[in-house]
Amino acid sequence: MDDAGRGGGLALLTDLYQLTMAQAYWHHRVDGRATFSLFVRRLPEERGYLVAAGLEDVLRYLEGLRFTSGDLEYLESTGIFDPAFLEYLATVRFTGEVWAVPEGRIVFAQEPLLEVTGPILEAQLAETYIINQVQLQTLIATKAARCVWAAKGRGVVDFSLRRTHGTDAGLKVARCSYLAGFDGTSNVLAGKVYGIPIAGTMAHSFVMAFPSELEAFRAFAQSFPERCVLLIDTYDTVEGARVAAQVAREMEAHGSRLRGVRIDSGDLLELSRQVRRVLDEAGLDYVRIVASGGLDEYQIEELTEAGAPIDSFGVGTRMGVSADAPWLDMAYKLVSYEGRPALKLSQGKASLPGEKQVYRFYDNEGLIREDVLALRDEHVPGGEPLLQKVMEGGRVLGQYPSLEELRQRFRDEFRRLPEAYKALRPSASYPVRESAALEELGRRLAREVTAHQRQLGES
Amino acid sequence: MDDAGRGGGLALLTDLYQLTMAQAYWHHRVDGRATFSLFVRRLPEERGYLVAAGLEDVLRYLEGLRFTSGDLEYLESTGIFDPAFLEYLATVRFTGEVWAVPEGRIVFAQEPLLEVTGPILEAQLAETYIINQVQLQTLIATKAARCVWAAKGRGVVDFSLRRTHGTDAGLKVARCSYLAGFDGTSNVLAGKVYGIPIAGTMAHSFVMAFPSELEAFRAFAQSFPERCVLLIDTYDTVEGARVAAQVAREMEAHGSRLRGVRIDSGDLLELSRQVRRVLDEAGLDYVRIVASGGLDEYQIEELTEAGAPIDSFGVGTRMGVSADAPWLDMAYKLVSYEGRPALKLSQGKASLPGEKQVYRFYDNEGLIREDVLALRDEHVPGGEPLLQKVMEGGRVLGQYPSLEELRQRFRDEFRRLPEAYKALRPSASYPVRESAALEELGRRLAREVTAHQRQLGES
Repeated sequence: MDDAGRGGGLALLTDLYQLTMAQAYWHHRVDGRATFSLFVRRLPEERGYLVAAGLEDVLRYLEGLRFTSGDLEYLESTGIFDPAFLEYLATVRFTGEVWAVPEGRIVFAQEPLLEVTGPILEAQLAETYIINQVQLQTLIATKAARCVWAAKGRGVVDFSLRRTHGTDAGLKVARCSYLAGFDGTSNVLAGKVYGIPIAGTMAHSFVMAFPSELEAFRAFAQSFPERCVLLIDTYDTVEGARVAAQVAREMEAHGSRLRGVRIDSGDLLELSRQVRRVLDEAGLDYVRIVASGGLDEYQIEELTEAGAPIDSFGVGTRMGVSADAPWLDMAYKLVSYEGRPALKLSQGKASLPGEKQVYRFYDNEGLIREDVLALRDEHVPGGEPLLQKVMEGGRVLGQYPSLEELRQRFRDEFRRLPEAYKALRPSASYPVRESAALEELGRRLAREVTAHQRQLGES
Repeated sequence: MDDAGRGGGLALLTDLYQLTMAQAYWHHRVDGRATFSLFVRRLPEERGYLVAAGLEDVLRYLEGLRFTSGDLEYLESTGIFDPAFLEYLATVRFTGEVWAVPEGRIVFAQEPLLEVTGPILEAQLAETYIINQVQLQTLIATKAARCVWAAKGRGVVDFSLRRTHGTDAGLKVARCSYLAGFDGTSNVLAGKVYGIPIAGTMAHSFVMAFPSELEAFRAFAQSFPERCVLLIDTYDTVEGARVAAQVAREMEAHGSRLRGVRIDSGDLLELSRQVRRVLDEAGLDYVRIVASGGLDEYQIEELTEAGAPIDSFGVGTRMGVSADAPWLDMAYKLVSYEGRPALKLSQGKASLPGEKQVYRFYDNEGLIREDVLALRDEHVPGGEPLLQKVMEGGRVLGQYPSLEELRQRFRDEFRRLPEAYKALRPSASYPVRESAALEELGRRLAREVTAHQRQLGES
């Protein structure tokens, strides 16, 4: 497999400016401790929440961060760098600490997903990979959670590998959709790497490679008597259902049972009803119906609300690229340097200063009610702190949780999210409040920076 | 680096059904030669053309395709497969042939980007990876070509790595945007792997890590006297331009020149004009203005049409995820089996039968006028055939063209595309006609299949 996200060999997978800044820091002995905060500025319009994901890959990357001799040779060949700096770069490791919201927990706009503290050169270098992974994985975990919610207890399986943006995305989409409650993935490598249950049956080409649909179905049933799902829409779906029913009865004669049929095109509501009727009339009420073909949470919701007799959904492209919102406005911003809080004022991109903690409050029924964004060393009574220290001195603290544990954590977490925020078109925006101390700090720094700039402008 | 797309280790990066079908083929001795055709069913609404890309990765994958003992152990552990089939799978290599449109050429809906012929098991197995790579790379090359067109001769640089969907996408986006005319990338690993020029300067955090903007700018200029671009919008953009001008004059005193300033937020048209004025009034007409921050082809077009004094655009997220159209409706369909053309009738997903060739016709000025989709062995006089045989017996024919050659090919090709199809909101749809023979074949097969199904339904 590729080593993306498994630490090592990824040091050059960064924006050039991380390295030019690093050289300037090194030349000028700017080596104070800095804290960077990773957060989403605004949620996409049709998102009521985000599911935090991607932390494990970030921590493995930080543990393995180093420049190989091949990396350094390449950098030297560009003529951009001071050879003495490259010698120094060969020795660089990540030695800092990380606070983070555990994967599988729900977060909202402006809340730090993680904060990285270390010598500024190290903490800065890691920016590109950290955003690259946490953006993608949080995006997909969130999209997938919406699909699971819309399916209202029916199964959902990841079929997206062919349309994910490349191979790394294919793996991460399988991981994050499973974390968010999918039942499995068609991605075999993801099954091997992450232990996710794998699923899949046949394509239209299989049916077409035999002289008739009947012969194709029989051949498949003979090869997989215990896990046979037949694709019935290659020529005519209802006809295909009748042929599948015939094969199912033949399977019964051999002591096995057809597991399901799959419909991959057309009007899924109408077709699933007709197919259910064909199966039921043949006494095959145990045969399940799987639907796929351009599905996302919106279409799943329509189908489940209309009572379509579909048992399980195969979800591909639109989930795998998060088609209605293919990116998050995620930023990694300097919030503290050498113990003093830092602030950026760029139009529309202002950031909140200081190392932070998020405190979560629950109502009497155990549902989440409000989050308070506070300074990390501030005491906010009654709130549950979301960020935990997960790395210290460049070493991970404790064990990585298993993917099953993350999945369970998300399931528990999602139960505590009020329905208003779960809706595909959320009717309310979850309240995230700034603590008085944080607000006051922001105001004070903005005044100071503006005064400082004015002074420079007049000088 | 990861080995994605460099052949080897990717055999399991496939949908499970490719392997279950393979076992059923093997059990039933279905081993005839099959041809699969890869094409885009419909262009996204705001696309007038596509730029073919991704072929090199496909060919390297096919050359390296094999299941490792670890792969086979995993497959055995799933309990899905017949151990004898897995023994056979260990021996599987791709032994077939590939016809393809060369990378960098322009294609349209329904036209095969490539056709794979081989024993059905081999040609089927490769589907998932082939779509995964060609979909992404064609998507991005097309999006990037639109950005370059909108920039009307100004520079365009890829800044997307942090928001691409994972690490593989980060590399492929850099590759394909360069192929389509970008000047370079911020992605250092892409520089190393593909030899693409790398670009980048500083982030806001750099400015914030110094006591003042002036000190930050001075430090950077000292470290990079020959390639200094200063980010001027951390606090106040016009103020930042004045500070940059001061540093530029100090640089002149040391015999070097400030290369540029970058604006990353706010109203880029208005700010670029004010910044240009500040620079010109300071006698710094040689200092270039780089703009970035949420740009795509639509905003670039607005800025260039308004005459914004911007010399170069840094394009990130929206290009790197093809935000307005994050996927292509791409399919890999069986079109021929054992010498007989194959056809699928699924609603809305019908495919054209037979191995094909695309013939392109030009007008008197050398602009492309019309494409004819024909059967591969059909003679269409006067047309230029687009698909070439690039692999035979599982071996690549000839050398891989360099990325510079692909870039040049695209540049030449794009000149021959009429303006109507280049527009960001194309006013016309390029004519792709089916040859009479292809049309007749499609009609005949549809009749036959329907009759066959009717017969089965009545039996």
